[in-house]
Amino acid sequence: MLSRAAQVLTLADGELGPRAGAAQGALGLREQYSVVLQDGVIAWCGPADTLDRAAVDAGAGARDERRAEVEELDCRGKVIMPALVDSHTHVVWGGARKDELERRLAGADYEEIFAAGGGILSSVRQTRALPEDELYNQTHRRLSRMRAAGTTTFEIKSGYGLETETELKQLRVARRLQNEGGFRVRSTCLAAHAIPAEHRGSAEGRARFLALVTDEILPAVAREQLADYCDVFCDRGAFTPEETRVIFQRARALGLRPRVHANEFGHTGGAQVAAELAAASADHLLHLDARERAALRDAGVIATLLPGTSTVLGKPFADGRALVEDGVPVAVATDCNPGSCAFENLALVLALACYGCRLSPAEAVCATTHNAAASLGLARELGRVADGLQADLLVLETDDYRDLVYHAGSPLVHAVYQAGARVA
Amino acid sequence: MLSRAAQVLTLADGELGPRAGAAQGALGLREQYSVVLQDGVIAWCGPADTLDRAAVDAGAGARDERRAEVEELDCRGKVIMPALVDSHTHVVWGGARKDELERRLAGADYEEIFAAGGGILSSVRQTRALPEDELYNQTHRRLSRMRAAGTTTFEIKSGYGLETETELKQLRVARRLQNEGGFRVRSTCLAAHAIPAEHRGSAEGRARFLALVTDEILPAVAREQLADYCDVFCDRGAFTPEETRVIFQRARALGLRPRVHANEFGHTGGAQVAAELAAASADHLLHLDARERAALRDAGVIATLLPGTSTVLGKPFADGRALVEDGVPVAVATDCNPGSCAFENLALVLALACYGCRLSPAEAVCATTHNAAASLGLARELGRVADGLQADLLVLETDDYRDLVYHAGSPLVHAVYQAGARVA
Repeated sequence: MLSRAAQVLTLADGELGPRAGAAQGALGLREQYSVVLQDGVIAWCGPADTLDRAAVDAGAGARDERRAEVEELDCRGKVIMPALVDSHTHVVWGGARKDELERRLAGADYEEIFAAGGGILSSVRQTRALPEDELYNQTHRRLSRMRAAGTTTFEIKSGYGLETETELKQLRVARRLQNEGGFRVRSTCLAAHAIPAEHRGSAEGRARFLALVTDEILPAVAREQLADYCDVFCDRGAFTPEETRVIFQRARALGLRPRVHANEFGHTGGAQVAAELAAASADHLLHLDARERAALRDAGVIATLLPGTSTVLGKPFADGRALVEDGVPVAVATDCNPGSCAFENLALVLALACYGCRLSPAEAVCATTHNAAASLGLARELGRVADGLQADLLVLETDDYRDLVYHAGSPLVHAVYQAGARVA
Repeated sequence: MLSRAAQVLTLADGELGPRAGAAQGALGLREQYSVVLQDGVIAWCGPADTLDRAAVDAGAGARDERRAEVEELDCRGKVIMPALVDSHTHVVWGGARKDELERRLAGADYEEIFAAGGGILSSVRQTRALPEDELYNQTHRRLSRMRAAGTTTFEIKSGYGLETETELKQLRVARRLQNEGGFRVRSTCLAAHAIPAEHRGSAEGRARFLALVTDEILPAVAREQLADYCDVFCDRGAFTPEETRVIFQRARALGLRPRVHANEFGHTGGAQVAAELAAASADHLLHLDARERAALRDAGVIATLLPGTSTVLGKPFADGRALVEDGVPVAVATDCNPGSCAFENLALVLALACYGCRLSPAEAVCATTHNAAASLGLARELGRVADGLQADLLVLETDDYRDLVYHAGSPLVHAVYQAGARVA
């Protein structure tokens, strides 16, 4: 039992169904509330002084078949909110690209580094070379740090294999992080992240790689049930809208729903494709006009913003304000990856979404909890504080949730609960 | 004893005397080194395998007059570096301005909010109203969080009083934080932070307030020995270069050395005044041309950059790259204050100095340790890892210091030592 919190952010007001958006910024803020967790789910959430403690004690007693003690965390002066959901990560990688970071800080451009065989292709070489167990152990440490900072649910993409064996290896690691590691994971096959070195430089090579994705990698992923989604990097220097459509057509036939890397480098068609296909999410969106926003809204696509990446690359921020005002549901994620943004702390990225993308603190909280869960098809399971949902919760060491933005970067996360168990 | 670190950042190479700058970015990085702390200072720093453990044991035994055990922290796979020095803060404040933050995120401008009686003047009202003990307790909690994030030395400015009694109250709180609270503090009288409400709107009022600063507040501060420095907000909407010179003339006669809020809103003369008076530091510097940089360099003024404030206000970042290339020593600080930036985590601001101001990770480490200490006249006491200096050290949970930037916002600080004692 988490008792007598100064604020509970329930996100349970308004029309918050399986899809996000109707109420971006409607926090459902309650004062002096308590939350009862039982058998991994939220059993009760209500005014602290109406809590029937006898019933709670009896519930605990009934479950344990003897009079058990109710564990209680005194939350006076604290905030209870849903644990964070990171709906866009590339956390399964080998090697690091810290030298590249230094080169970029000294003035080199991300697209130039990529064209010279650095960037994604450097991570591909290093991820292919790393044995699965080592990849698992390194990623486990990474997710542990991320969870300590407040995130319990992770979307994890492949995309540093770009051939069958390594793509499957990355996705197996993602599954093991769920099954052995105890993290909540939704996984995405991003075989179409870049054209790998061995297929670059000719139209034939490009066609060969696209056929590899549609005829070998995606079917293998589906056969082993290793992914929930398929993603394509639809942008300048990566894949065209036409290629993207072909890949998603195959993915859909295999039961993998689309998410799209879209409009990071320009008005390059990705947002349109996302709308056409009613993708679960269109991500990045640094360049987006009113027509593209309307298309996303009308198609029910969630816009996932990655302001950490803008910070690291010194690029403009996606216009979160315009998206919210045009009625597009907005999620915010870390993009955690070895190159363009290795930020692990989603609470920090939440703050950057306010300062960079002009979301309000309330909108940014919704973007990293309910809306992110909705983009992963988990809106009925977690991301809010409501009876019957998974007890994935944060307790903050402050009486005002806006401190997540005001004191960005301060260690405000006091406790992290996943399925009712304290994990940090 | 801190033993066998993967990296020790000594900052002890080159010409690092009492003033900063000769070697911005010269980290003096050593691998597989150990550091011995004794009686609050660094007694030895050298290659782990040359450490004479018998001598260490004997040293401990001699001190305790019996064979004492040597406390040892195994630092394998970790980084040892100087604790951070935050050389520009306004941490003694009453009230909070989180509603104002939300208004700014919704589009209001900082200078407009100030002109309407918000901003600094709102903090002045709330700080005047708060009893000294409450002010002390609130600030103590703030500094405790900041120290847990890696900072052991703080510059603290007044400036939310703007009349004698409250300016003295703020500076007494700063002194108590040192004497009772155990924090390392250097304090600065910033009575010339803004014209207070009761003197605004007429030339006579303005003159009356300037006289109050020079004839009453500064002498009272000097008499009670409550400050080490005097600061003036020399910028548009605050004080002119001429007014700034008058205030600093008086301050200097009273033994208070100048630091200057300069060139935040334009080429408004503050950097020139800082150079003329060989100020200890010129701070903000968002607008700075080659001539102004040369003037700061030639006068030996340290440029203190505050990239957290640019992040919060959505303003451009100071050009740290140009400063380093023109030979100006650069420090980086939080600016922690209730309005324009309430960031408490200097390690995060160090990362923003890389992404925003284009410092290299090594330059940003130097900027938040040795150079910041130099700007506070403490370069011979702390800010490096060298024999005889104060044992204010961090142990990082990584084997590569660049993770402070690469994984910005991750909880990498494993241990904080102040005067040899573990404080976090």
